[in-house]
Amino acid sequence: MDKIKILGIGGSLRKGSFSKGLLLEAKKLAPEHIDLEIWEDYDFPSYNPDLEVPENVKKFKNKIKEADGILFSLPEYNYSVPGFIKNAIDWASRPYGDNSFEGKAAGIMSESIGTTAGSKAQYHLRQMFVFLNIHPINKPEFMIPNATDKFDKEGNLTDGETRDKIIPYLEALVDWAKKIR
Amino acid sequence: MDKIKILGIGGSLRKGSFSKGLLLEAKKLAPEHIDLEIWEDYDFPSYNPDLEVPENVKKFKNKIKEADGILFSLPEYNYSVPGFIKNAIDWASRPYGDNSFEGKAAGIMSESIGTTAGSKAQYHLRQMFVFLNIHPINKPEFMIPNATDKFDKEGNLTDGETRDKIIPYLEALVDWAKKIR
Amino acid sequence: MDKIKILGIGGSLRKGSFSKGLLLEAKKLAPEHIDLEIWEDYDFPSYNPDLEVPENVKKFKNKIKEADGILFSLPEYNYSVPGFIKNAIDWASRPYGDNSFEGKAAGIMSESIGTTAGSKAQYHLRQMFVFLNIHPINKPEFMIPNATDKFDKEGNLTDGETRDKIIPYLEALVDWAKKIR
Amino acid sequence: MDKIKILGIGGSLRKGSFSKGLLLEAKKLAPEHIDLEIWEDYDFPSYNPDLEVPENVKKFKNKIKEADGILFSLPEYNYSVPGFIKNAIDWASRPYGDNSFEGKAAGIMSESIGTTAGSKAQYHLRQMFVFLNIHPINKPEFMIPNATDKFDKEGNLTDGETRDKIIPYLEALVDWAKKIR
Repeated sequence: MDKIKILGIGGSLRKGSFSKGLLLEAKKLAPEHIDLEIWEDYDFPSYNPDLEVPENVKKFKNKIKEADGILFSLPEYNYSVPGFIKNAIDWASRPYGDNSFEGKAAGIMSESIGTTAGSKAQYHLRQMFVFLNIHPINKPEFMIPNATDKFDKEGNLTDGETRDKIIPYLEALVDWAKKIR
Repeated sequence: MDKIKILGIGGSLRKGSFSKGLLLEAKKLAPEHIDLEIWEDYDFPSYNPDLEVPENVKKFKNKIKEADGILFSLPEYNYSVPGFIKNAIDWASRPYGDNSFEGKAAGIMSESIGTTAGSKAQYHLRQMFVFLNIHPINKPEFMIPNATDKFDKEGNLTDGETRDKIIPYLEALVDWAKKIR
Repeated sequence: MDKIKILGIGGSLRKGSFSKGLLLEAKKLAPEHIDLEIWEDYDFPSYNPDLEVPENVKKFKNKIKEADGILFSLPEYNYSVPGFIKNAIDWASRPYGDNSFEGKAAGIMSESIGTTAGSKAQYHLRQMFVFLNIHPINKPEFMIPNATDKFDKEGNLTDGETRDKIIPYLEALVDWAKKIR
Repeated sequence: MDKIKILGIGGSLRKGSFSKGLLLEAKKLAPEHIDLEIWEDYDFPSYNPDLEVPENVKKFKNKIKEADGILFSLPEYNYSVPGFIKNAIDWASRPYGDNSFEGKAAGIMSESIGTTAGSKAQYHLRQMFVFLNIHPINKPEFMIPNATDKFDKEGNLTDGETRDKIIPYLEALVDWAKKIR
């Protein structure tokens, strides 16, 4: 039986990143039929169409293409998507005619230390999805408010209620990915 | 008499960038009382709060603080702000308590090869401004549709009608900067 | 063989409305296998959960539920969706637990007299879709800039190039509706 | 000494509306130098440029013009501004050349029963402000999550911590209104 391939993208780069911890927890909890791989290397140059596509961008693009679905996990910086994640998206969508995200299913997880839970970053990401031709799930939405109470200092998810939402979220993403492929 | 200091931020990194050409044209046309400086170095690492603030980020932050107003000029990538510009904004807004943009006036110029003229990037930028506590002018808006007809291959603005809008735009930004400082 | 049912929602209320004319043109051009009906009555009270659901709202909700897909057509008012269309959406999504739009496919057509073609209204509508659990198509996007050159004073579409985009757009919506139902 | 005039717009129409209760509390707490009036009548027809401007719209437009600043208070419906409030805005911004909001200062208060506190409606409203040429304050932002714990069934604000934020918010709006007029 075919496994469904999900590529995890995101996290912040700080040690103890909550959004990275969330991806790691999702990988740990992922049921047998879901192959969740986390992309780790965001050491890309600033996107510039004059540059040759760097080797690590090529690998990133291939991983995206091989996936059935993408799971973004991100903090909110300045009411939007962190710049380095957007830069990774800019690389993966180019050159014109070779958008690696074309037609993919996606889910989004976000967290913030305040109450709005990264929602503003999620909605900016959804607007990008239109151009990228990514189809995100609508429900459930996965947003974690008051993140400092739910992760430890190493970025491990410690909140049981949040953990209980991960498997249903992955299953919703997988069902959607199967439906639209 | 005091000159008003405007810092130009943006452009794309490709040779012949239209949005960079627009900043250069604005600098050329700027009246005597406006000191328009263009920031050129976007070779910043991916924002990571664990890193020491790099030297070029420190310079960038100082230039922003010394300015009375900021003039953003940008293309639209994937229906939003280019990732490398967002990364520069992320650096300049940190560490917490040292947001270099605090209270600044701003204007935004954008262009695209299609008809929507980079407007989606402008509106994402405006949402960031709320967190950054930047006060943008509302009118006029500066958006250039069908940019390939209005710039040459070196990125020089060749369209007279667009050029005629630059000085009034700069003056509107300067008036607003004076009012709110 | 089953026909696909599409419900057209929108238009402005003025005589000679372009966005209404666009719906009428789509109805005229719709191929045999597409049953495109246009909803005409927007004479709803301001949404108020204390009110009994009015009779015409009940009819509207039923038409939405019977449809396989929704085709929105709208002008942009104040950089967003016209208030009366939003009010119709507010009614159709309530009461809680009886959201008529649940799981529907959708397309969006917009027009404006300027160059940005109603795109800002489209992106606000897409954000509403997340809550409404509507799945819009991403591509193609249907936006008409410089609308005064493309419609006559009675609101009839006169531009051939725009007309040629209607059937492919309807087919893309129908394909998507079939895939996700 | 001149009083500053603030016009309160919004609320939902249900009995016991929290966002209406918030405006009433603000009126009660407003210091001597602030004249806060609440607009109550949203019984406007769907905006249609073919109609004569109704009498109550004319009054609404005059109240807006007389005000130094606008205080919006709103719930979030379907991740955006309630349709009837948008319809009121559409009327007040027209006819072309007679936008009653021109150049006004504004503040926004929102609440929701969940954690995101109406923020998505606030950001849609801010996008409208660009066209309307309204200048909103950036800081502080006024958003009330978990509203059912903070208001009673009649819509009276019962939460002391929230109440303590009202006067500073009004003063920030007034300071901004003075600065930009």
